[in-house]
Amino acid sequence: MRDTLFEEIDGLYDEMVEMRRFLHQYPELSFQEYKTAAFIQEQYKILDIPYQANVGGNGVVATLKGAKPGKTVALRADFDALPIQDEKDLPYKSKNDGVMHACGHDGHTSTLLAVAKVLKKYQEELAGTVVFIHQHAEELAPGGAKPMIEAGVLENVDVVYGTHLWTNTPYGIVQTSRGNFMAAADHFTIEIKGKGGHGAMPHQTKDPIVVGSQLVTNLQQIVSRRIDPLETAVLSIGQFHAGDAYNVIPDVAMIDGTVRTFNPDVQHFIKEEIEKVIKGTCIGYDVSYDFDYAYGYRPVVNHAEHAEKVLAAAEQVKEVEKAEMIVPSMTGEDFAYYLEEKPGAYFFTGAQIENGFVPHHHPLFDFDERAMKIAAKTLIAATLNVNK
Amino acid sequence: MRDTLFEEIDGLYDEMVEMRRFLHQYPELSFQEYKTAAFIQEQYKILDIPYQANVGGNGVVATLKGAKPGKTVALRADFDALPIQDEKDLPYKSKNDGVMHACGHDGHTSTLLAVAKVLKKYQEELAGTVVFIHQHAEELAPGGAKPMIEAGVLENVDVVYGTHLWTNTPYGIVQTSRGNFMAAADHFTIEIKGKGGHGAMPHQTKDPIVVGSQLVTNLQQIVSRRIDPLETAVLSIGQFHAGDAYNVIPDVAMIDGTVRTFNPDVQHFIKEEIEKVIKGTCIGYDVSYDFDYAYGYRPVVNHAEHAEKVLAAAEQVKEVEKAEMIVPSMTGEDFAYYLEEKPGAYFFTGAQIENGFVPHHHPLFDFDERAMKIAAKTLIAATLNVNK
Amino acid sequence: MRDTLFEEIDGLYDEMVEMRRFLHQYPELSFQEYKTAAFIQEQYKILDIPYQANVGGNGVVATLKGAKPGKTVALRADFDALPIQDEKDLPYKSKNDGVMHACGHDGHTSTLLAVAKVLKKYQEELAGTVVFIHQHAEELAPGGAKPMIEAGVLENVDVVYGTHLWTNTPYGIVQTSRGNFMAAADHFTIEIKGKGGHGAMPHQTKDPIVVGSQLVTNLQQIVSRRIDPLETAVLSIGQFHAGDAYNVIPDVAMIDGTVRTFNPDVQHFIKEEIEKVIKGTCIGYDVSYDFDYAYGYRPVVNHAEHAEKVLAAAEQVKEVEKAEMIVPSMTGEDFAYYLEEKPGAYFFTGAQIENGFVPHHHPLFDFDERAMKIAAKTLIAATLNVNK
Amino acid sequence: MRDTLFEEIDGLYDEMVEMRRFLHQYPELSFQEYKTAAFIQEQYKILDIPYQANVGGNGVVATLKGAKPGKTVALRADFDALPIQDEKDLPYKSKNDGVMHACGHDGHTSTLLAVAKVLKKYQEELAGTVVFIHQHAEELAPGGAKPMIEAGVLENVDVVYGTHLWTNTPYGIVQTSRGNFMAAADHFTIEIKGKGGHGAMPHQTKDPIVVGSQLVTNLQQIVSRRIDPLETAVLSIGQFHAGDAYNVIPDVAMIDGTVRTFNPDVQHFIKEEIEKVIKGTCIGYDVSYDFDYAYGYRPVVNHAEHAEKVLAAAEQVKEVEKAEMIVPSMTGEDFAYYLEEKPGAYFFTGAQIENGFVPHHHPLFDFDERAMKIAAKTLIAATLNVNK
Repeated sequence: MRDTLFEEIDGLYDEMVEMRRFLHQYPELSFQEYKTAAFIQEQYKILDIPYQANVGGNGVVATLKGAKPGKTVALRADFDALPIQDEKDLPYKSKNDGVMHACGHDGHTSTLLAVAKVLKKYQEELAGTVVFIHQHAEELAPGGAKPMIEAGVLENVDVVYGTHLWTNTPYGIVQTSRGNFMAAADHFTIEIKGKGGHGAMPHQTKDPIVVGSQLVTNLQQIVSRRIDPLETAVLSIGQFHAGDAYNVIPDVAMIDGTVRTFNPDVQHFIKEEIEKVIKGTCIGYDVSYDFDYAYGYRPVVNHAEHAEKVLAAAEQVKEVEKAEMIVPSMTGEDFAYYLEEKPGAYFFTGAQIENGFVPHHHPLFDFDERAMKIAAKTLIAATLNVNK
Repeated sequence: MRDTLFEEIDGLYDEMVEMRRFLHQYPELSFQEYKTAAFIQEQYKILDIPYQANVGGNGVVATLKGAKPGKTVALRADFDALPIQDEKDLPYKSKNDGVMHACGHDGHTSTLLAVAKVLKKYQEELAGTVVFIHQHAEELAPGGAKPMIEAGVLENVDVVYGTHLWTNTPYGIVQTSRGNFMAAADHFTIEIKGKGGHGAMPHQTKDPIVVGSQLVTNLQQIVSRRIDPLETAVLSIGQFHAGDAYNVIPDVAMIDGTVRTFNPDVQHFIKEEIEKVIKGTCIGYDVSYDFDYAYGYRPVVNHAEHAEKVLAAAEQVKEVEKAEMIVPSMTGEDFAYYLEEKPGAYFFTGAQIENGFVPHHHPLFDFDERAMKIAAKTLIAATLNVNK
Repeated sequence: MRDTLFEEIDGLYDEMVEMRRFLHQYPELSFQEYKTAAFIQEQYKILDIPYQANVGGNGVVATLKGAKPGKTVALRADFDALPIQDEKDLPYKSKNDGVMHACGHDGHTSTLLAVAKVLKKYQEELAGTVVFIHQHAEELAPGGAKPMIEAGVLENVDVVYGTHLWTNTPYGIVQTSRGNFMAAADHFTIEIKGKGGHGAMPHQTKDPIVVGSQLVTNLQQIVSRRIDPLETAVLSIGQFHAGDAYNVIPDVAMIDGTVRTFNPDVQHFIKEEIEKVIKGTCIGYDVSYDFDYAYGYRPVVNHAEHAEKVLAAAEQVKEVEKAEMIVPSMTGEDFAYYLEEKPGAYFFTGAQIENGFVPHHHPLFDFDERAMKIAAKTLIAATLNVNK
Repeated sequence: MRDTLFEEIDGLYDEMVEMRRFLHQYPELSFQEYKTAAFIQEQYKILDIPYQANVGGNGVVATLKGAKPGKTVALRADFDALPIQDEKDLPYKSKNDGVMHACGHDGHTSTLLAVAKVLKKYQEELAGTVVFIHQHAEELAPGGAKPMIEAGVLENVDVVYGTHLWTNTPYGIVQTSRGNFMAAADHFTIEIKGKGGHGAMPHQTKDPIVVGSQLVTNLQQIVSRRIDPLETAVLSIGQFHAGDAYNVIPDVAMIDGTVRTFNPDVQHFIKEEIEKVIKGTCIGYDVSYDFDYAYGYRPVVNHAEHAEKVLAAAEQVKEVEKAEMIVPSMTGEDFAYYLEEKPGAYFFTGAQIENGFVPHHHPLFDFDERAMKIAAKTLIAATLNVNK
């Protein structure tokens, strides 16, 4: 049956590409994915698979009961996009200003819909139940996974799988790891509260741009000096905004960033050190501040047995040249929460365009669409293997 | 006649305040002051003083010929506002989001209109001609002064005066200086062109926020180390903008600032040093940059004789407690260009609210409205003195 | 026989302590350890074990042939000290100003001499040959290991062992790892060549202290931003020296530091990035520089089989509470070169004083002297095990 | 008589050069000028002018009573040197390692001795009394001026003059100013108290070099941001010392610098801001500090009348091409204290080597020795003019 399903995926490939490119043109920000959710619902209506809408927010969950008895496997795909301006020069570039599928969630959605279509076609031969979790809001904490789980999407589920199309990995390669796979991802915001005034009279102001700049510089040495070099930690600033005119020193500067760790001790330590650096920098410049640190997604920790099963499934896909265990990634994922509830594994499906690497979250981001076939087949194989 | 005119100004005070507060509620950005210009035209229509609209842009120029012969005196008031959000909690706060009369140009306009009204009333006794120059776009280089001069507003003018309501100076004080009075004011913009990517994988990016922060820090030592301490120079950053999401390292950072000097050698030297610092910082981080440096207004250099005449005029105003020569200010003004063409002087009319100093260009900016009376009377006295 | 030898070590303990404390009072800098080398030679003379002096420098090598046939085991102890002022308040504190055994090499020497004394006493029962390598100059690249190896100390050697008394590890614990055990340790020196002058006239100078300070700050973001967070790297500055008077800006600043890595790609990358940061910083300040980067010791890579043998030997020592495999250390060791030539392993002998942790290279450094017994017994057991 | 004395100075020129070059070879640090003081005493012994040694320290004061009645004029020359290594390649370079006459005090001494010799020769014709103040320790606060004044050197003095050979000014020019002439010069020392350790394990340390570097960087923005741009202030770091080995993070970093101001409000404000910046920087890095700020010499404020007399005297010297009033200098001088007690003036005697400008306090410092003739003649003329 697996080979038959694989052939079906091959046959669906053009449709998968078309659907992904359609979604790519109409990206929606996290928690605002109304049209995308409606589109997904529409597909399940067409497929005649029962689904539930507005699950824990904009989530959509469809359930396909196979004709034969067996365990329940949940497959998850996220569908939100990012506040990035699409700078590709391609027909399917984003039509929504300042919003972009710069992480491949369009491909995840198209892939999972193809998997659903194929499994539906062979429902009579299918053992067990497959739950298709289309999750909103992966890109923005607190994320969609937790409310969807709270809404019950994992009830009766025995195993949960998911994948990320991954441009850091060449096409043809599938990767996972046995335990730690993706990092804890926190979000912090700093507001430097200085005192604005005329740019010509700096001594009458408390310049928040100079303080903020000093702060960004000072923060670098948390990772370089204060963390055990054998531990792993990232502290990145994603936004710095201050001022409205070249000749006016503003009152405030806003700095926004993320911390990535695996070890909770390191995570908590960094939070404290950030505040220490902010406090000291602000005292030195006699300004005040607000500091808001939101603990984000916990680390994605695969269940070793299922990590191995995922690689075994991938090895059954002829397009896969290599299925391998790797060191973990610093990126975060709210897939973490599914794995805290149920056994399962998350994996990367290599999707790098040959000679055309663009990192995730980049304005020129795109991926090798053929990877969607590998993702779909690996998910199908892993699902079938559960009830083999 | 002077005392009569002063009494008229006293009688007009409530109207001046009302008009100023009206303008305060409807500020317009430089080069976009269409409604303010229309309002001014409307006043001259009512006053029956011939005027010309759209002079060198949105400028308005009215000309009042006295019945007696004499020299021509030009009085100038600017009328544009700033891209600042008004944060005052007062009935007359700005109704235009993000735009604010945070520099007092509303008061300048109201003052000059009152002067025009009073002089018109006594046109029969007036010697010489008075030209009322309502100038647009003082806040944004290249400014409105140059195009208005090119359009001919100084033709046949013998003397030019102007004043700034000034909250750095207490109410009751009038200030000017014999030569250098206000600084050359340049504008520069820096774009740091890094390489964006996922905030979790900094090594795949070239982080323009870290580079920009380092740059702002590095720029501090141009003034602290490279300029002769006996020279005068300011380098301020007014804007730093980068990034759209906390977990995405952006491609670029934009930094926008101003340089203030009196000595052209120092001015050119700072421009070169800024570029040197940018270049070095960018080489150290392997990123590229754009640097745009626009020489702005030249320094305001009063004609000594007229600086003294302005103080003499101020001393004729009973509300003036002190009329004094001061050290120059670092702020810039395109009044500079009038003084490069014609004799005259610019002066500050103290407008600080007692126990309520707020610097110019601040979101809480406001001024002591009684200063408008002093400004109007000093301008009237100085004008009458020319043809005495 | 092992138990007998262990009892002999117990009997020698007071002498080991005395000898260690003697050495502690007379530390000598790397490559200048003349008196220490003479002391070691003197001991072998007394023990009547043939030795060779001035091996590859100040090295001393003694060879003890057992009466029975067997393999040759080399045991290595280093004996140089550091340019640190001893700030302990103890009777055995350093009597040499500015020089200190702040890394425990005094203990290594005393330990190996005790091992030699005990094995000599049982020479008739000893199988194989034991080579005692007393190495000079471990603390300062290019180190003593290479010239001693070039001088032939490993000829005919079958296995090489060594240990470091280690205050990061509690007393009673022995640690090693199967492969990477200690990092590559490089040394770099930067000279910022500015232009000195009177501190009151900074604009006539090019201030190397400001440049150097900026440089140290800029260097922080190599580790924080440019290295894959899953890789391991340290960049530390150990010296910053500039100036001779508070009111004179000096011509030059000297900055001296170390880089620690395991991955040669990361090692070479950091070297390039350091130069890039220096170059950019110097261009931004219009100064020149000298940059000297000396690749130091390569990483200590244990032979997995011998790492396990070392732990097995440690487990035969009753004072050892735990013998464990650990993650590698960022510290460097020229023991690396012995392991590039011969099979063997290096290990840590926990020597932390209870409730009194002081890091290595600290002015208050000291260690739990009882650890010397564990070190001696583990080396003896491992040696005997080779020819068991 | 003036012209006769000028001719005598011309005749003494070779001797002045010889004496200056001798002193140049044997410079002594402030408060340690024993041999220089002895040399000066020896000269007065030869000249048969009564003198007092060890005045307020190493100071030497000689008094020449003219045969005619008149006022008492004090002339002052300082004679200490600096902790700078002489890097000139000239026969008369310093023979004392690390000590150098890098400020011209050798020339001051030689000049004043020549003036004394000439006046002595014409004692019979001389009106009034001349006091020759050879002052030790000008370069190092608290300086020699205060103790010499306390020892009574200004008793009965009516006027006090002094000059500095000045390489910032071309040969042939004499400069002074009517009021503020040289700045207040303060000295501060900062000790950053971190926690040392092994360079490979930064997270176990509190790195004082990184903190100190950050601090030097942060201090730049006191002048660039916090001081009114129309005020004058310099903050320079002259020394940064930390560490003894490339691979050991030290416990402490020492930073030493100077502040120059004219306005006491600015002076006190900078002191407070420095401490604020230190405090904030140290809190951000969790280290402690010592901060010692020593108010140094007060500003040199000339008496306007005597500033004009000095220029008038200079104009009587044929080698003087220009005698001018200038803006003040940021350098400090304990000549300040003489002028707080008595009327007088301090002036610069241009001594720049043509096409060979080297700033004061530079390892290559030298001056145009012909300037000594101008200095001597101007002092003589000014002295004679007092009793004219």
